[in-house]
Amino acid sequence: MRVKIFISLKNGVLDPQGKAIERSLHTLGFDEVQDVRAGKYLELAVDAPSRPAAEARVREMCDKLLANTVIEDYRFELSDGDGD
Amino acid sequence: MRVKIFISLKNGVLDPQGKAIERSLHTLGFDEVQDVRAGKYLELAVDAPSRPAAEARVREMCDKLLANTVIEDYRFELSDGDGD
Repeated sequence: MRVKIFISLKNGVLDPQGKAIERSLHTLGFDEVQDVRAGKYLELAVDAPSRPAAEARVREMCDKLLANTVIEDYRFELSDGDGD
Repeated sequence: MRVKIFISLKNGVLDPQGKAIERSLHTLGFDEVQDVRAGKYLELAVDAPSRPAAEARVREMCDKLLANTVIEDYRFELSDGDGD
């Protein structure tokens, strides 16, 4: 099963990387852009007997390693596909 | 309009960050995981008169600044919402 994981900073957490990107976009003339937030995007393949089992394992991975749940939120999407 | 941008390394480009995450997951007991690829995830708000106009501007931003199109692919999703 293929998994896409999106990790972003929680609202209210300062995002200097997002701010830097926003400033660069303004410098390049993209003045219509606001509120840039930077995060991480992961793709992986997971081998699991069922969709709920895969969801549980991916949630565990995010909580234990992939996301810092003190300051980050995550969500993920599962899709059938190769790699499992 | 709210925009979500997903930037990932092209197939065939070495991904040491993804490999490191994969090894860490295996060390933690998540042996069922393979083929981890790490990328970037951006959220931003863009002010545009229409959806096609917003798409064109976001594509331009990605090509000029956000993605390195030699080694990275990007895709994005637009949704109506606050921030514009």
